[in-house]
Amino acid sequence: MALSDDLVTLLGPRGWLTEDTGSYQTDWLKMQSHAPLGVARPQSTEEVAGVLRLAHAAGVPVTPQGGNTSLCAGAVPGAAGHVILSLSRMNRVEAIDPLGFTAVVEAGVVLAQVHDAVADQGLIFPMHLGAEGSAQIGGLIATNAGGSHALRYGMMQDLVLGLEVVLPDGRTWNGLRPLIKDNAGYQLRRLFCGAEGTLGVVTRAALRLYPAPTARATALLAVPGLEAMVRLGAALRRELGEFISALEFFGETGLEMALRHVPGLEFPLGTRSPAYVLVELATAAPGIGLDAMLEAALERAFEGGLVEDGAVAANETQRAAMWRLREEMPEGQRLEGPQIKHDIAVPVDQVGRFIAAMAPELDTILPGVRLNPFGHLGDGNIHFNLSPPEGQAGFGDSKAALSFCLYRSAERAGGTFAAEHGLGRSKIAFADQLRSAEERDLMQALKRAVDPSGLLNPGVMLHHQVAQE
Amino acid sequence: MALSDDLVTLLGPRGWLTEDTGSYQTDWLKMQSHAPLGVARPQSTEEVAGVLRLAHAAGVPVTPQGGNTSLCAGAVPGAAGHVILSLSRMNRVEAIDPLGFTAVVEAGVVLAQVHDAVADQGLIFPMHLGAEGSAQIGGLIATNAGGSHALRYGMMQDLVLGLEVVLPDGRTWNGLRPLIKDNAGYQLRRLFCGAEGTLGVVTRAALRLYPAPTARATALLAVPGLEAMVRLGAALRRELGEFISALEFFGETGLEMALRHVPGLEFPLGTRSPAYVLVELATAAPGIGLDAMLEAALERAFEGGLVEDGAVAANETQRAAMWRLREEMPEGQRLEGPQIKHDIAVPVDQVGRFIAAMAPELDTILPGVRLNPFGHLGDGNIHFNLSPPEGQAGFGDSKAALSFCLYRSAERAGGTFAAEHGLGRSKIAFADQLRSAEERDLMQALKRAVDPSGLLNPGVMLHHQVAQE
Repeated sequence: MALSDDLVTLLGPRGWLTEDTGSYQTDWLKMQSHAPLGVARPQSTEEVAGVLRLAHAAGVPVTPQGGNTSLCAGAVPGAAGHVILSLSRMNRVEAIDPLGFTAVVEAGVVLAQVHDAVADQGLIFPMHLGAEGSAQIGGLIATNAGGSHALRYGMMQDLVLGLEVVLPDGRTWNGLRPLIKDNAGYQLRRLFCGAEGTLGVVTRAALRLYPAPTARATALLAVPGLEAMVRLGAALRRELGEFISALEFFGETGLEMALRHVPGLEFPLGTRSPAYVLVELATAAPGIGLDAMLEAALERAFEGGLVEDGAVAANETQRAAMWRLREEMPEGQRLEGPQIKHDIAVPVDQVGRFIAAMAPELDTILPGVRLNPFGHLGDGNIHFNLSPPEGQAGFGDSKAALSFCLYRSAERAGGTFAAEHGLGRSKIAFADQLRSAEERDLMQALKRAVDPSGLLNPGVMLHHQVAQE
Repeated sequence: MALSDDLVTLLGPRGWLTEDTGSYQTDWLKMQSHAPLGVARPQSTEEVAGVLRLAHAAGVPVTPQGGNTSLCAGAVPGAAGHVILSLSRMNRVEAIDPLGFTAVVEAGVVLAQVHDAVADQGLIFPMHLGAEGSAQIGGLIATNAGGSHALRYGMMQDLVLGLEVVLPDGRTWNGLRPLIKDNAGYQLRRLFCGAEGTLGVVTRAALRLYPAPTARATALLAVPGLEAMVRLGAALRRELGEFISALEFFGETGLEMALRHVPGLEFPLGTRSPAYVLVELATAAPGIGLDAMLEAALERAFEGGLVEDGAVAANETQRAAMWRLREEMPEGQRLEGPQIKHDIAVPVDQVGRFIAAMAPELDTILPGVRLNPFGHLGDGNIHFNLSPPEGQAGFGDSKAALSFCLYRSAERAGGTFAAEHGLGRSKIAFADQLRSAEERDLMQALKRAVDPSGLLNPGVMLHHQVAQE
């Protein structure tokens, strides 16, 4: 095929793979796998532009790919014969500016690599999530990743100051200005962030950095109930102000599964309760008594009946052990057996009521279904994952009904059915059902405006509709 | 005219003004004044939708207007016979959620009113700027306002969680979800923020709140030079971490003008120097010794040669006096005589070099021109205002050349010619000259996609171009 010949000419044999493409074409959760025309592995923005120009001219769809860690199959093609555009070879940290607290990196840099590169300068890039050893900056931008520190530092859209993006026809938009304030046009940098590679391919980014914390305090708390959990979260946010860098939660069902299956986990409290909160404070300023401050706040929460039991980590080992409990929630459930993952959010004040209300509703659909809601108390993002009833091998034919019930309820509560993972390929049918006609039309109009041929990551985020004029 | 009749029927006589429209049709800086067909003053989202539907059907352009405090004539029509859509009567604070740290307000609420409403609950909405007694939330969102606390809390786009927007054809997009994390579609909430009312009319917003600081520490510092100023800013950000809520600067020229003209100003330092830095710390956590922390950091800065002289405010009166010096910079220059205002940003590390480099360049264009750069050291946003040479009444014919020189230099330095004020009507010609063809084309494509008739705030942000198909 002519396109394949052109691409090998443009990229060389290491830059255009047509064999052994399995790891590129199959998504993280192994939901999709379609043989591509080939995998383009450009080494520069110019090469990315060349790939898009050639594919555009040939009318062949292109799926951009970072670390391929999408949980929604957003980074693999939905049909055979497409071009996969891997950014993995564009993996340079180009500049770190310690005076302006910014870094410029290529899209293929792995998140953990950014962490390491800025640590030498006493700085942090405060995005942390489970896949940080594989996920690439470009993919994190495309999916507007969230993570455990979003309450304090924001999502990717808040951490990206400027972007360079290759547009669907191969032209390049240079918006790589490392500025907090830039109002000389529409907020394109914010629009491309979270567009899941359907409007353009991010090739470079100017990231926002922060001073590295010099002290931390971490506590694990057993709370008497879901409403108390919400009120505890608000009280801690008020009393501990700007120090809170994470405010996470999980429940007893998830804890049990994790303790049963994950080797080496330890639970430091003597009390078992319906829910647990992990709170972490961090500061870059010297001489702040974080532990004392946290203990005083917890004392008041205990007196107010918001906490039943708790422990403040006395050292880094204990701190890591507390975080492992939270972070192994997905692994514990995975080892338990089949599951359905959900990534919803509701307004923070409703987190408790929402979880409580869902239990009987889901039980009506599948009696005995086990609920494992955990996640980010500070921003209302709940990974509301389900396991089949004890002793059952699966969900029967209830899967779609369970998911739809959760998603619709989240929307009705003023929340969202897709909080931090995005839509990818696996959730656009739900989006069609749950989001308004105005929102769908707006998205379609924007997509057609920027990618009129619909060749960039088709089938991700929205169904492609051709213009009706 | 039929439209006028329809609008009075829809809105009633108090909702549709056709006389005494002077204060609506004339912009803040009195650059523009065109008699409108009338001023629509709807009281609900449904009425806003009705106005847009009727105007759209009649083919009459509509200019949305908040407090009419734009410094770029962004909120007044560019020709006679248009409809001005004032949101002033939609001025309710609808809800404040102290558990979720959010508020829902109508677009016509004045910023200071939001401050007052949330203060009762021990909360803040951390947007502060000179016009806060007049500027309305809808206008602040439309222009993606910045202000003095953007370094810590972000711009409006970072403080808006959800939006309700009436689209150009009168349909309503309900994106009023009070969520930090919401990835179920393109980031429309971010796109409408900063679109200056050219893509839709914001009618309601879910805002992000923070705990009210319980302690502050403020210092005014004299620095030996512009490079020292930049290094001081970075050192303070490192040492004082998350406490810095403002990091502002001004120069000797601006200080002289302000002290000469503005009654009641006092300068608390014994040293006069090329530049001054105002730093403020704030915390909502109890028992933090902010003053001691600030004094220790300043001691180190003094020893390192980054500070020549300084004072820490001993009480609220001294603090207010320090802030007045910074805030009266525009007033001092206004009373001095004619001026040209600029609102640029450069990468933070380049602030000093940039100001130093501009002096000879501008002097070549107009010998003796006086530079009064002041603004936000923490984010690189410089209000680089100019006064004519001492003893001269104006800028002769150098005005455009001076502005263009500053704007182009800011762009070349990796910055922007429009940082926090937006483009309005007065800066789109510069945008055409300074921004890339790709950026202009992208903006045009988005505008055509959302407002194909080009009837919403035409002539603001970009020149309307009809589709070329």
